Amino acid sequence: MEQVFDDAFFMKKALSEAQVALEKGEVPVGVVVVAKNTIIARAHNLTEALTDVTAHAEMQAITAAANSIGGKYLQGCTMYVTLEPCSMCAGALYWSQISRLVFAAEDPKRGYRQQGTLLHPKTEVAAGVLAPEASALLHAFFKQKRD
Amino acid sequence: MEQVFDDAFFMKKALSEAQVALEKGEVPVGVVVVAKNTIIARAHNLTEALTDVTAHAEMQAITAAANSIGGKYLQGCTMYVTLEPCSMCAGALYWSQISRLVFAAEDPKRGYRQQGTLLHPKTEVAAGVLAPEASALLHAFFKQKRD
Repeated sequence: MEQVFDDAFFMKKALSEAQVALEKGEVPVGVVVVAKNTIIARAHNLTEALTDVTAHAEMQAITAAANSIGGKYLQGCTMYVTLEPCSMCAGALYWSQISRLVFAAEDPKRGYRQQGTLLHPKTEVAAGVLAPEASALLHAFFKQKRD
Repeated sequence: MEQVFDDAFFMKKALSEAQVALEKGEVPVGVVVVAKNTIIARAHNLTEALTDVTAHAEMQAITAAANSIGGKYLQGCTMYVTLEPCSMCAGALYWSQISRLVFAAEDPKRGYRQQGTLLHPKTEVAAGVLAPEASALLHAFFKQKRD
């Protein structure tokens, strides 16, 4: 059967990363960065493990993707992330000049759109891809925290 | 002679970090993070050396300060930075809940205030401390680039 490399395909990979974060007791957010239908970086949130507020999945993935490419700009790359990026991560994406951002669940409280932070004008955005699956992981995490 | 630990004293330390960046061919921005009149983190911009847009001085200093403290929140800390932070760094400072931010030169183009990015409501801000000295380093860098 031929593999279809569509947005849902790559978002599932990002969801797998988020699942790993959940199992580690981290807020479950996962990322993959894709260039020419190839995953060049994967990451999940590690703020608790690293005791570092900057260790969001997106930040790690930007660093890893630049390392993979051998250049600091991510033109031609797409980031798939399971939650709408915060201002920090959107600011980093701005500097990276990434070509495309695809996110799953919206973050009405801390998302970059709510905060008014701008992406690079050349970055295309698609929202809501597999949002229910991403939200389910986040709800599982916060329920686990409460119980 | 008694040493006065005022904002100018610590901003001079941040300017020394910016000077190191300049000598390495990096955009000259330097940071120190201070807790109880002690410098717990120093950093300068390393985006070129690390080929990483996330390697702003502030991001490195937040990670280093959290490491020094052994906790991810920078309550009780002050960051001295020679240039107004961008949205990425302001977003990171937001998550850190840092108590005070002191910056030297304004950045009317990429500064967080222009972009509308919010700091944490508990973060006090002081702007303009040794701004001429910080601007002189930035001008020296861009002149060097043009020549």
